Amino acid sequence: MSRFWSPVVHTLSPYVPGEQPKQGGVIKLNTNENPYGPSPRALAAITAATERLRLYPDPHATRLREAIAARYDVAPEEVFVGNGSDEVLAHTFQALLKHDAPLLFPDITYSFYPVYSGLYGVNYQTVPLDPEMRVQIADYRRPCSAILLPNPNAPTGIALPRTAIEALLAEHPDQLVVLDEAYVDFGAETAVPLVKRHDNLLVVQTFSKARSLAGLRVGFAIGQRPLIDALERVKDSFNSYPLDSLAIAGAVAAIEDDAWFQETRRRIMATRETLVRDLTTLGFEVLPSAANFVFARHPGRGGAHLAGGLRERGVLVRHFSKPRIADFLRITIGTDEECGRLIALLRELV
Amino acid sequence: MSRFWSPVVHTLSPYVPGEQPKQGGVIKLNTNENPYGPSPRALAAITAATERLRLYPDPHATRLREAIAARYDVAPEEVFVGNGSDEVLAHTFQALLKHDAPLLFPDITYSFYPVYSGLYGVNYQTVPLDPEMRVQIADYRRPCSAILLPNPNAPTGIALPRTAIEALLAEHPDQLVVLDEAYVDFGAETAVPLVKRHDNLLVVQTFSKARSLAGLRVGFAIGQRPLIDALERVKDSFNSYPLDSLAIAGAVAAIEDDAWFQETRRRIMATRETLVRDLTTLGFEVLPSAANFVFARHPGRGGAHLAGGLRERGVLVRHFSKPRIADFLRITIGTDEECGRLIALLRELV
Repeated sequence: MSRFWSPVVHTLSPYVPGEQPKQGGVIKLNTNENPYGPSPRALAAITAATERLRLYPDPHATRLREAIAARYDVAPEEVFVGNGSDEVLAHTFQALLKHDAPLLFPDITYSFYPVYSGLYGVNYQTVPLDPEMRVQIADYRRPCSAILLPNPNAPTGIALPRTAIEALLAEHPDQLVVLDEAYVDFGAETAVPLVKRHDNLLVVQTFSKARSLAGLRVGFAIGQRPLIDALERVKDSFNSYPLDSLAIAGAVAAIEDDAWFQETRRRIMATRETLVRDLTTLGFEVLPSAANFVFARHPGRGGAHLAGGLRERGVLVRHFSKPRIADFLRITIGTDEECGRLIALLRELV
Repeated sequence: MSRFWSPVVHTLSPYVPGEQPKQGGVIKLNTNENPYGPSPRALAAITAATERLRLYPDPHATRLREAIAARYDVAPEEVFVGNGSDEVLAHTFQALLKHDAPLLFPDITYSFYPVYSGLYGVNYQTVPLDPEMRVQIADYRRPCSAILLPNPNAPTGIALPRTAIEALLAEHPDQLVVLDEAYVDFGAETAVPLVKRHDNLLVVQTFSKARSLAGLRVGFAIGQRPLIDALERVKDSFNSYPLDSLAIAGAVAAIEDDAWFQETRRRIMATRETLVRDLTTLGFEVLPSAANFVFARHPGRGGAHLAGGLRERGVLVRHFSKPRIADFLRITIGTDEECGRLIALLRELV
């Protein structure tokens, strides 16, 4: 603490990301990273782009916005890009979610949302998931300025169908609906096709998961132009070039390599099915996941106990010491070998 | 405009960075980029780091903070790193400069400062440069919460000696003094050695200029731990990983290659001396620069006229249509050949 701090700093409770161990030899199933590397074309594009590093990047990341727009059948002006979807979400909180009426999001969800709210003074209320840990859109029929939902939700992994999203948009024509689709490519339906008809929809995605570029920091949002304009105004008042030249080049190549994307996400979904079956056999309750992780609990063993036991044996999973979910483990889908090792260890622990 | 915008968005006047032309063949002397590339060791480190892109970066960028700390003889905990010095400055505005009493900065300076102030609602006053376009520290003896000075100042290029900075710190023991040292390596004295004795000093630097990594987006701040803690708290409430894995690896290698750094900045300073002499011969008034640019005006030709004429001939320089400086051109120090071409064209234009 210091007499020089701005008042808001005293009140912040920063987000704590999953551990990134410095030593090797650990099986990392704790931060939802992709077990397969990014497209080799992305790596080649990055190496080629090192020739231009003395120059500033394109502040508008035009090539990347065009590539994303082509992939999702929208206009480049309907695409905003940022330094990971975390930065995109931060700008969204500041640019679009600070109003008198509260923002609504689930009680069990990405734990960065209350942190952003604290940073920008956004008034929010949480809406409980139902007893089966599902989002019920009927529960969002209450006074609010905006609704923020991850789809699939994290850490539950449960997705809403597009029809439910469409109903939510129709029920709230004057409230912004922000969908955080970080995990959508592992079995959920994206709402991007709804952008054309709904001026109250903003969809946020990332290159960190299905495109395996967590280390490159690229995220994006798709929405109608007034929403994108708000994000641009905030971004251009914060940092002209949040995406470096290598990130732009690598992300363009990654999104253009659809074959790699399809094959790696297919493999991850196949491994997930095996993992769910094996966990169930061990007695775990596993929530139905449309993400690259599963959320599971064992009736006989607490989450902290299991996470600690796995850690001692060289496997990291994520455990949240929070109401309703303290019994659960969030387990990233690794390779078949990594998940096999996990199951073998859990067999000893349960 | 949109009914979904947060109120602050309506009031923003975003920063406009210098042009990044998409076509080649242009001599770019408009955004203070380094004409020599970054250290080859940085490029090799980046290529090696592409192997780890599926994983998140180290959120604390520990290796980079250690490398910067070793270079500047401070502790790693006294170093904050961010996505370019622009992001570091943005966090500084939010974390350390929002108080009841005004922030002070010069009337002629980096034009992003009022933009940050608008984004975060920071109360500020500008202090006029003296008639010779110099910062006079006596002019800052007025009620304030903090003082922000670029040293050397931009776009004037004029530097204050470390003795003046020390006097300023002593006169304002209860006000934070932020020094933006983006251009310090081209002939000014860094204030980093004063950090040990002054808890009210924060020094901000960048890898974009003397280390020729504008395309990589790395900046840092050095100060005593309570100041760095405030920046960390805001950063960890905004984006856990603003520096991607390639930026961390490249910046570590760049700061460790001191020979490259010394040789390239020496060459730029030598070219500057030639350029100043040639501009003076053409009748320009050139402010005394300790930066990798010069700020110059011609008694017979306006800045807009000259900048437009140069642009038509394939050379970009920066011109600001603002009070007191509309007659000036800000000219980046390029290679000897680029500056020779500029002088040949200006000979036609004046």
